[in-house]
Amino acid sequence: MSHTYEYPRPALTVDAVVFGLDEEDLRVLLIQRDIEPFEGGWALPGGFVRMEESLEEAVERELQEETGLKNIYLEQLYTFGKTDRDPRGRVVSVAFYALVKLSDHNVQAATDARNAAWFSVGETPKLAFDHQEILTLARERLRGKVRYQPIGFELLPKKFALRQLQHLYEVILGRKLDKRNFRKKIQKLNILEPLDEIEKDVSHRAAQLFRFAPKKYQKMQKKGVDFEI
Amino acid sequence: MSHTYEYPRPALTVDAVVFGLDEEDLRVLLIQRDIEPFEGGWALPGGFVRMEESLEEAVERELQEETGLKNIYLEQLYTFGKTDRDPRGRVVSVAFYALVKLSDHNVQAATDARNAAWFSVGETPKLAFDHQEILTLARERLRGKVRYQPIGFELLPKKFALRQLQHLYEVILGRKLDKRNFRKKIQKLNILEPLDEIEKDVSHRAAQLFRFAPKKYQKMQKKGVDFEI
Repeated sequence: MSHTYEYPRPALTVDAVVFGLDEEDLRVLLIQRDIEPFEGGWALPGGFVRMEESLEEAVERELQEETGLKNIYLEQLYTFGKTDRDPRGRVVSVAFYALVKLSDHNVQAATDARNAAWFSVGETPKLAFDHQEILTLARERLRGKVRYQPIGFELLPKKFALRQLQHLYEVILGRKLDKRNFRKKIQKLNILEPLDEIEKDVSHRAAQLFRFAPKKYQKMQKKGVDFEI
Repeated sequence: MSHTYEYPRPALTVDAVVFGLDEEDLRVLLIQRDIEPFEGGWALPGGFVRMEESLEEAVERELQEETGLKNIYLEQLYTFGKTDRDPRGRVVSVAFYALVKLSDHNVQAATDARNAAWFSVGETPKLAFDHQEILTLARERLRGKVRYQPIGFELLPKKFALRQLQHLYEVILGRKLDKRNFRKKIQKLNILEPLDEIEKDVSHRAAQLFRFAPKKYQKMQKKGVDFEI
């Protein structure tokens, strides 16, 4: 069956930038394309929006079909509409992004894609379409967001050392932070409660443990903070 | 001539939320529709994206056609894709927003729309489609942005009283601010240079004049600030 319109219509797709975080690394989920264009090349998971589904439903469906990932909170990032961004013709893509705990999400190759895998954000292969541009914007958005919101904190154990919190920020930001400065800023935020406990079973000198002060933390989530690191 | 595709395609539109600021008020630019649906109703300027133009080109063209406004820096806001948002069928719309100096932009009714006018943001008529939702999101984005970036400052004269700066923020935020708190926060930002001058020809007690310290202001524009008011 074919579909006829009075005026030509751009095709509409969705793409997903899913960042996966563990204690060592920030990764991004890519799929290997098994159809033209860019057959065999790596790309962000995504695909065409169907008439009966919202943009959010479309990106969730595509993500699950191509990688097996589901129940992920995807936030809209930006819509990419350059006229030459897809060799098949005019395709406009609404990009979404998410940050998940890597250990919670195993990926699998699924129906639509040949292969799906997590790549270290610093070591991604050449990407199809304008997906490098989409990835770069998502990375910037994440860096910007971590400055104002408590992102990724759920990755930490309930009781943690300041070293662990600093490392979390370093992984998301992709750069080393000055220890003394970091501690000064965290202290100023006033969101941590020092505990009468120290780390156990560690090879280095056991550090004091902290936990998030629930009320302060909630306020920080709601109102945002300026944590310029 | 008609256009045929293998799969059905949503139609793609762009919409523009243009805020106009003067010393008294924050307004939004609306047009009165002269075609169905919502004929005679008020709506955001906008229309269908053509195959040969980018999203930015489309929104600039529509804005000029419908209101006469041109050379406006429009920033992408969000893409609205609920399946039932347009009674004509599936239409996905990429919304943009801008903030302009009201006095710089006279509007005119133009080819595509019956009428165009600036409405006080607190007194907008019922809007067509989901345009109220788009307007509400744009308003929130503007409020969020003013917290971190020096927005609308170009509206002030080169030398200004603190009262004028506070009023600018009050208009954008849509609420009164505490004078003492406001001054404390502005002082902390360290972006103002006090001048050896006071206001002239004012009916109230002449206040000291300030100007923006260019280097600090540029840094603020580039890096953002936390100006939690």
